[in-house]
Amino acid sequence: MRWIRFTAAGKTAYGILEGEQILEVAGDPFRGYERTQRRHALAQVKIEVPVIPGTFYCAGLNYTAHVIEQAQKRGVAPELPKRPDIGYRANNALIAHGETVVIPADASEKVQYEGELVVVIGKEAKHLTEKDALSAVLGYTIGNDVSERTWQRSDRTLWRAKNTDTFKPMGPWIETEVALDALETVVRVNGRETTRFATNEMLFGVATYLAAMTRYLTLHPGDVVWMGTDGASPDLRSGDVVEVEITGIGVLRNPFRRASA
Amino acid sequence: MRWIRFTAAGKTAYGILEGEQILEVAGDPFRGYERTQRRHALAQVKIEVPVIPGTFYCAGLNYTAHVIEQAQKRGVAPELPKRPDIGYRANNALIAHGETVVIPADASEKVQYEGELVVVIGKEAKHLTEKDALSAVLGYTIGNDVSERTWQRSDRTLWRAKNTDTFKPMGPWIETEVALDALETVVRVNGRETTRFATNEMLFGVATYLAAMTRYLTLHPGDVVWMGTDGASPDLRSGDVVEVEITGIGVLRNPFRRASA
Repeated sequence: MRWIRFTAAGKTAYGILEGEQILEVAGDPFRGYERTQRRHALAQVKIEVPVIPGTFYCAGLNYTAHVIEQAQKRGVAPELPKRPDIGYRANNALIAHGETVVIPADASEKVQYEGELVVVIGKEAKHLTEKDALSAVLGYTIGNDVSERTWQRSDRTLWRAKNTDTFKPMGPWIETEVALDALETVVRVNGRETTRFATNEMLFGVATYLAAMTRYLTLHPGDVVWMGTDGASPDLRSGDVVEVEITGIGVLRNPFRRASA
Repeated sequence: MRWIRFTAAGKTAYGILEGEQILEVAGDPFRGYERTQRRHALAQVKIEVPVIPGTFYCAGLNYTAHVIEQAQKRGVAPELPKRPDIGYRANNALIAHGETVVIPADASEKVQYEGELVVVIGKEAKHLTEKDALSAVLGYTIGNDVSERTWQRSDRTLWRAKNTDTFKPMGPWIETEVALDALETVVRVNGRETTRFATNEMLFGVATYLAAMTRYLTLHPGDVVWMGTDGASPDLRSGDVVEVEITGIGVLRNPFRRASA
């Protein structure tokens, strides 16, 4: 099942996406819903961020090649994370499928994409085991963890490197039927493929992360966990269009534009 | 004016606190409200976290003495932050005034308080100047940035060191009339004063932080910014009661209890 959050005629609602048709619901997939008689053509609605999370989790370094490449670029020895220590991103930066990533005028040329699998939590959960962890998941969507590498190195936190307004595209919708091992992440810039990797070949997988996290914290419906990225990105320029596809989920497409000074 | 969020007879609402009386409102201080005829005695309600933030910002190291003491404990040279790089905390960890901080069974003895001024944002704001920054502030409350120092050193992120469930007491209410320079932060453990500092003697003050942040990000009504702490805390034990008072705002009181293994 595909959950989509959308705006039509000035009203934002959740719906179930079937092909190119949206069946609007009353309520939402987290606290309960009822189907309505309202139908919308996908092409006629504004797609919204699929959920505004209560807490916005992000795994950061979670693929071997990405850790090695990032270390090489900085001229330091790569160090693989030893444990699934979860990190955070910020809601101010979220934008929907189709919306524009605005690169600040004073950003360097080192603005890059990171295509990521996003876990959407469906149930309140604590003390999950690896075996039952996926039962807390409603479904999966796609994130682009846009990063300015100069700020990522210079600043004490990731605030503007990764949480500048518009730097966190997420969507286009939530797919509930996913075979993690079958997923492939493919990134295209202006239609040309630039990155491809097996989505589930993570250092620490989804179940491992959720079990580790819930030893100390309660997950709540609507929380999201971005699972990190593999490979490297070219530097993006004003006018570029980035598509992050995860096979079986969908395509998250966003244009990039540099603000004038 | 004091804004309080509370539950009475199973219903959570905002109210205006006048002395020991709460005047319940319909709506909230962020999107608009109307006074109602309902009155409650403060002593008869359950005090709630004053706001669940959209984004939970935290300044981290923002007082000279605290930076030096933390560095000395780690045996490294103190390094004062050069810029107001904002950090983050997580909503899962929030608890209200009076609620219990639960120390996980496997935490070390190094569980400590950090008494902090909390800025509550009242208006959407970007590109604030230092001069107009405080116009985006609804008011101020109090936070206790509870920290497990062993995890703070060992982990790649602050997730369980600072964002374990219950590690972020905030409250008891939002005070809108505050003279920042007059504030004093006083922390007591079991009634005995253990820390006292001038709240506004920060490395980077409230207006400086808000102006710097809003160069890159939009603040939204209900966002909170925790401003860091000064001084050091003793190690807290199961059964301790910690009070963080900021003069003119109120007292945030929370008991600490260690979970059984």
